[in-house]
Amino acid sequence: MKKTLISNGIFIANKEDKTSIKGCMVIEGSQITYIGTEVPEPLESYDEVIDGTNKLYMPGLVNTHGHAAMSLLRGYGDDLALQVWLEEKMWPMEGKFTSQDVKWGTRLSILEMIKGGTTTFVDMYDHMNEVALAVEESGMRGVLTRGVIGLCPPDVQTAKLNEATEFAKNWHGKADGRITTMMSPHAPYTCPPDYIERIVQAAHDLNLPIHTHMSETRREVEGNVEQYGVRPVAHLEKLGVFSRPTLVAHGVHLNDEEIAILKQYDVRVSHNPGSNLKLASGVARLPELLRSGVKVSLGTDGAASNNNLDMFEEMRLAALIHKGVTGDPLAIPAKEALLLGTRMGAESIWLEDVGLLEIGMKADFIALDIDQPHFLPKTDFVSHIVYSACAKDVVDVCVDGTWIVRKGECLTLDEEKIKREFEICFDRLKG
Amino acid sequence: MKKTLISNGIFIANKEDKTSIKGCMVIEGSQITYIGTEVPEPLESYDEVIDGTNKLYMPGLVNTHGHAAMSLLRGYGDDLALQVWLEEKMWPMEGKFTSQDVKWGTRLSILEMIKGGTTTFVDMYDHMNEVALAVEESGMRGVLTRGVIGLCPPDVQTAKLNEATEFAKNWHGKADGRITTMMSPHAPYTCPPDYIERIVQAAHDLNLPIHTHMSETRREVEGNVEQYGVRPVAHLEKLGVFSRPTLVAHGVHLNDEEIAILKQYDVRVSHNPGSNLKLASGVARLPELLRSGVKVSLGTDGAASNNNLDMFEEMRLAALIHKGVTGDPLAIPAKEALLLGTRMGAESIWLEDVGLLEIGMKADFIALDIDQPHFLPKTDFVSHIVYSACAKDVVDVCVDGTWIVRKGECLTLDEEKIKREFEICFDRLKG
Repeated sequence: MKKTLISNGIFIANKEDKTSIKGCMVIEGSQITYIGTEVPEPLESYDEVIDGTNKLYMPGLVNTHGHAAMSLLRGYGDDLALQVWLEEKMWPMEGKFTSQDVKWGTRLSILEMIKGGTTTFVDMYDHMNEVALAVEESGMRGVLTRGVIGLCPPDVQTAKLNEATEFAKNWHGKADGRITTMMSPHAPYTCPPDYIERIVQAAHDLNLPIHTHMSETRREVEGNVEQYGVRPVAHLEKLGVFSRPTLVAHGVHLNDEEIAILKQYDVRVSHNPGSNLKLASGVARLPELLRSGVKVSLGTDGAASNNNLDMFEEMRLAALIHKGVTGDPLAIPAKEALLLGTRMGAESIWLEDVGLLEIGMKADFIALDIDQPHFLPKTDFVSHIVYSACAKDVVDVCVDGTWIVRKGECLTLDEEKIKREFEICFDRLKG
Repeated sequence: MKKTLISNGIFIANKEDKTSIKGCMVIEGSQITYIGTEVPEPLESYDEVIDGTNKLYMPGLVNTHGHAAMSLLRGYGDDLALQVWLEEKMWPMEGKFTSQDVKWGTRLSILEMIKGGTTTFVDMYDHMNEVALAVEESGMRGVLTRGVIGLCPPDVQTAKLNEATEFAKNWHGKADGRITTMMSPHAPYTCPPDYIERIVQAAHDLNLPIHTHMSETRREVEGNVEQYGVRPVAHLEKLGVFSRPTLVAHGVHLNDEEIAILKQYDVRVSHNPGSNLKLASGVARLPELLRSGVKVSLGTDGAASNNNLDMFEEMRLAALIHKGVTGDPLAIPAKEALLLGTRMGAESIWLEDVGLLEIGMKADFIALDIDQPHFLPKTDFVSHIVYSACAKDVVDVCVDGTWIVRKGECLTLDEEKIKREFEICFDRLKG
């Protein structure tokens, strides 16, 4: 088993007593086996010794909501209302997507994500085999799910559900365990209640979690009340969704009672501040969710509504906007924002050994080049990560003990080919 | 006079009819003399021909409020309320600043700014000779002002005012016109009324504009009402401040009447979204200011309250937060955010020939490397700049017709020396 030593680095250890350690980390196989101030064994006992001078090592970022293939729609129809943007721009273009489009759109997003320090992502989309193949090849970690929209005839509903079930069954635990799967009704407003119940049953049968969009816009909440007499949280509760481990995306419009229900069922919320702001959906009640003990994490959403996949930006937005909007400068401190983007992200998608630099955890970590003006003075590195860093500060990325980015170059995917094929797809789609 | 051709580039032309042009730009001396789709003269007539393939050229960014030397306090005392942070953290450390600290703190910030595409900045601080020398050497453009706090005995007030006046007189128009100056009472709550009047008189005598902090926090506005019976805008109006061309920083807490007064006097507002969010000061009424015809621009504020000097992030925040908070997805479109960071920035500080790629304008421009996933597909480059780009995408920077950054390296300042001296200053300060 390969044994790697990283020495002379600064490591973000999410311990209570200190936030960063100057020292060493040892990786054996896919695990972290040591982190501390001293080199634990003679240098000759390592297969690889890396000089970590001027590098800041931190857990890889965990992006808990997105649609990778939507990179093909980046900058297409910006500055519109959510429903108009969805119905007039996104859905017609997405309707034309073939598996080739998903293949290259997803690969472009994976490139952007891994070069920018994201080591795990959640993806809810169509043509998911292509997404799984891209994850397998890239070396990153993916929690994947075929999102199904149920506004269609019963036979199409059934075909979609079967497809989602097959995908979830075939890929769960694959790629050395880097791929896990979920079941996904797209949203309460795009799936009739009986269809949601069938998806819940399938998730029970497969023993898998559920992922769905929920309470993203005020209009959605109002529509749910009009159509079903209850708000989305009560609606999904009634349909048994929360009888499965559940991750909901957005959760912007929640009242106190709904937050209590989410806490009661340990429903996890993927907060997507960039997308929620850009689509004018509103500002989620993140401080209240956290104070209530709900497990929250961060997602970029698709590149069409963000428009990049920079998780540093999501951490920064989470730290900044809730201070500004609530008037409380302690609303979301830097340390909490960092946890949202790392450890709480991993916990939100049931990855218990990811998201921390600690002995026994998976070696999913990244290195930032801190020999740059915006990382000086060398004071509070957690603050620098959240308030000052960006995706392009990432130089090295390791997932499951394997380097997938070194010196800013992706080692697993052919960047030039991906950009070329991506442009061919886009040219055909806009046709 | 040196004549440079950039060919095969994409250029952001802030014309009404189109937002980007694929083609060429010619620079002669310090000016843009051509921009269009064709190469206007045979290649041999140029001193330098640059291949702009895979580069996006846009006006240099204009940062209209900051305190460059405060990079020394980056990450020092984060996540505190404004007054506590100022009174217990910032001011005690700043009280120790010598001209050496300002010299190296400012140089570090200038490095960060120019490498990140900012070609003009406003700086309000102390030991301003060091700032002016740094601007001169760096090749960037600076609008500089000695900010004076009047909470001191009359002789100290007078000494500070004299110092500010001398500085403004000596440096206005220097460095080939790249430096202009202003007069600055620090804020209504840090300067007694009679002292503000004396500063206004000095600005009249020198025929210079005034720059001040104003209406940054609710507490400041309430304090102004308690102490002087009026809100800050009426207070400054009464003291004659607006009889001079004026740029106010922040303007977070403004009512309709105050916005009308600012419009009436053509007072310019530097909107600092990152700083306002981080210090929990609130969310400025940017859409209302713009609709009322007030000239608004963007500033980072000091690195202690931001914590980087990335103007792409300020444009993005300006575009995002007002959508999210108002619920209007058209609140600040990408095109408007770009103007806030470029042309309106220049106009806000009375630089009439800066901030646009157009014939006759100063050659203050930057190039982004767009051969990267987050700039694909090649659809709407204005959208990509605002919603997707960051400081680290900048590869080349030209100010006043002179290259100061090429391939990401600063040509005018010694980066290694600056980082070294900066760390020495910080180590001494933290003592």
